[in-house]
Amino acid sequence: MSTQSNCVFCRIAAYQEPAKVWYVDNDIIVIKNRLNWVPVMLLVMPKEHLSQVQIWSSDLMPKLGEIAVEMGCIFAPGGFRILSNFGRHGMQSQSHGHLHVVGGVQLHEYA
Amino acid sequence: MSTQSNCVFCRIAAYQEPAKVWYVDNDIIVIKNRLNWVPVMLLVMPKEHLSQVQIWSSDLMPKLGEIAVEMGCIFAPGGFRILSNFGRHGMQSQSHGHLHVVGGVQLHEYA
Repeated sequence: MSTQSNCVFCRIAAYQEPAKVWYVDNDIIVIKNRLNWVPVMLLVMPKEHLSQVQIWSSDLMPKLGEIAVEMGCIFAPGGFRILSNFGRHGMQSQSHGHLHVVGGVQLHEYA
Repeated sequence: MSTQSNCVFCRIAAYQEPAKVWYVDNDIIVIKNRLNWVPVMLLVMPKEHLSQVQIWSSDLMPKLGEIAVEMGCIFAPGGFRILSNFGRHGMQSQSHGHLHVVGGVQLHEYA
């Protein structure tokens, strides 16, 4: 499995850095975002260091998507948003590919 | 292929309703959103009527994701966001599952 020692998400997936883990299996980990903009802010990611571009076309994507939807349905039953940010205009801050699940309150526009 | 006559996205995919089509193949169609919040607002969807929940865990998801990323890289090279909205809090307005690709300008927060 490809990991990068300078990647905070790789270190969290390897339990070398603390995080609030909401789900974990062999391939995927879900953690609570440190940001606190809305009540539910989760990060769904592969344990392996894949880029944002890579995860979206990977064989793992239906499983990442299924878990992201499940998290949303359980923890934000009033509705939620699943998204990834790409590049500067998209406000991407981590190279390790991940999906945001946000909800728990009426969300604003998405652009 | 499952289609619904009262679904605007099914009618667009069947060429029964006009839309600005940016990409099409046997399974997928990409159209320009009628909304105009940011320069790039595209909708990537299966031609078949699958729900928002269904597409995210479907076998088609890596292909939907690949095309969404490709659209973003080509038309919003400065960065973009890919997302789906679920339910009332998420501002979901169509039952036919779809991904938004938004960009072409510095995007705001996503929640």
